[in-house]
Amino acid sequence: MAITYRKAGVDIDAGDELVERIKPLARATRIAEVMEDVGGFAGMCRLPSGLEDPVLVSGTDGVGTKLKVAFLTGVHDTIGFDLVGMCVNDVVTTGARPLFFLDYFGTGKLHVDVGEAVVRGIANACKEVGCALLGGETAELPGMYAEGEYDLAGFAVGVVSRKNIVDGKRVAAGDAVIGIASSGLHSNGYSLARHVLLETMHLAPSDTPEGLGGATLAEALLRPTRLYARHVAALTSDGGIDVRAMSHITGGGLPGNLPRVLPDGLGVRIDGTWTRPAIFDLIAQGGPVEEKEMRRTFNLGIGFVVIVPAGHAARATAVLRELGEEPIALGEVVPVDPQTPFEERVLWQGA
Amino acid sequence: MAITYRKAGVDIDAGDELVERIKPLARATRIAEVMEDVGGFAGMCRLPSGLEDPVLVSGTDGVGTKLKVAFLTGVHDTIGFDLVGMCVNDVVTTGARPLFFLDYFGTGKLHVDVGEAVVRGIANACKEVGCALLGGETAELPGMYAEGEYDLAGFAVGVVSRKNIVDGKRVAAGDAVIGIASSGLHSNGYSLARHVLLETMHLAPSDTPEGLGGATLAEALLRPTRLYARHVAALTSDGGIDVRAMSHITGGGLPGNLPRVLPDGLGVRIDGTWTRPAIFDLIAQGGPVEEKEMRRTFNLGIGFVVIVPAGHAARATAVLRELGEEPIALGEVVPVDPQTPFEERVLWQGA
Repeated sequence: MAITYRKAGVDIDAGDELVERIKPLARATRIAEVMEDVGGFAGMCRLPSGLEDPVLVSGTDGVGTKLKVAFLTGVHDTIGFDLVGMCVNDVVTTGARPLFFLDYFGTGKLHVDVGEAVVRGIANACKEVGCALLGGETAELPGMYAEGEYDLAGFAVGVVSRKNIVDGKRVAAGDAVIGIASSGLHSNGYSLARHVLLETMHLAPSDTPEGLGGATLAEALLRPTRLYARHVAALTSDGGIDVRAMSHITGGGLPGNLPRVLPDGLGVRIDGTWTRPAIFDLIAQGGPVEEKEMRRTFNLGIGFVVIVPAGHAARATAVLRELGEEPIALGEVVPVDPQTPFEERVLWQGA
Repeated sequence: MAITYRKAGVDIDAGDELVERIKPLARATRIAEVMEDVGGFAGMCRLPSGLEDPVLVSGTDGVGTKLKVAFLTGVHDTIGFDLVGMCVNDVVTTGARPLFFLDYFGTGKLHVDVGEAVVRGIANACKEVGCALLGGETAELPGMYAEGEYDLAGFAVGVVSRKNIVDGKRVAAGDAVIGIASSGLHSNGYSLARHVLLETMHLAPSDTPEGLGGATLAEALLRPTRLYARHVAALTSDGGIDVRAMSHITGGGLPGNLPRVLPDGLGVRIDGTWTRPAIFDLIAQGGPVEEKEMRRTFNLGIGFVVIVPAGHAARATAVLRELGEEPIALGEVVPVDPQTPFEERVLWQGA
């Protein structure tokens, strides 16, 4: 009997069906710059008009083992939202406007409903930040993933006028460091979080541990990554605010991410206080996980950080409040010995 | 005892070491448009000067279960080359010049040497097509992949002046269809190829089956995907050639990929003959796999196809010969019933 591709484990029809189901989802994310119906091999996008010396800004990321929570709970329609958040939040730290997004979905055996749910989450986030879902790849790799599992990679491109690039180079001692709240873990630290919550504490996804406000553990763990593109757009278009640096707080927490946008010889002294989402305390106590390890693993309630001159802090705070935020005065930029190791450039007051 | 991120399976130091090893590889791919040392969260790239109404062209892809051959043989320094080929060959079908590339590398436990080898392959291909390796993500996902395994996703962005977009819209009956040789399987059909060669025929990677010219099966299976960016650049910059459509022959073979760039009501009659790499005959006989299934799964020796008016075929052929190719006159564009199913728009003479 002759062997076919399908018998070797690849279901071309399932792939085709998923493509059909994705089409309207992608179409709903179209922006004016997308060129429709051109070519069958690649997505096309023009540049927004009126940009002086446009610079393309690009980033790629995944969602880590937050995927495992999606597998465990069977909830697949927000993990794509996380994927967009991880990529686009990086891109907008430069002051760029998100332009388009592409995704890679790799799995062992394609389940069309799951793939559609994942892409729906991607499309929802793309719509929220105004970037087009320009393309994607669904790869069926028999024997590469456990049944029901998949990996995701995202890729975002934005654009900014060269003169408007935010790159941290003008950050100076005394600048104000303002935090915008995260919704929870976002998409980092899940290997540690799952290890503590599920394996050490033996909690079930349906449990409602004290402090989570009645939410199940699954709900707390799956809460989607927040998107900060509109915050960046508001802050950088205000005109009166000199946004000197922005940082997306991902794996590595504040110590791992703030120094990425600080010139040598500068650090940040954290003296503000804020109430962090209860999931972090649950993990810290349940491990136990030492505070130092918590700080270098999780965002601890701060998803995005903006650095402005001290004299602009009130205005930046007001702009963020208009967006419904309660911005957190985290602290200020301080001089540090240029030899200070990267992760020690974030100093906790009293620590 | 307190729990740390490392104990939960994520080795931050290995990730940092890989980043250090990747830096010089990425640096070697720099093109003039890349902006160095700006921001810590995203890569930045200006547009080439002199482009009128620039259009960004973007594609994403993986390398399928060719990965399994890399795992089986321990040869990891060309699979990244394949990744670039899969993405960039798609992008250049539009006439675009490749600009930058980003990669996603997902694995269960990071092996720094393997990661470095993969990125070396990526960087080598980027250099060959003149596009910058602008960024990447290495994700360690404990429990998601079998030991020693990983998945790869690539993202490429190119740029083309709007008036120079090649989109197939002007393809007409009578146009000449010219093929450029592949090097073998490239990165498609490996689930079927492995099923036949390794599981049905029980060949070992070190075997040297007749017809492979003394090459081992591993060598034949790992032969890198060819890059067609320079062919496209030569054909589209000649000025005298009206390049009407280009097609990258991937999964689905000629019937799956040629119709992607043909207007409705047109097909391609294949009447040329060519000698295909012996690996295809080995698979066809070893399965056995029927010729129809071979055609819709593999490239069968044709990696890239160019469609030009019949009167331009000689000139296009000459341009390709100057690049060292032996272009294949595949056949010509013919009218077909507009209701003809997609995959039946490629007609084999006498079939």
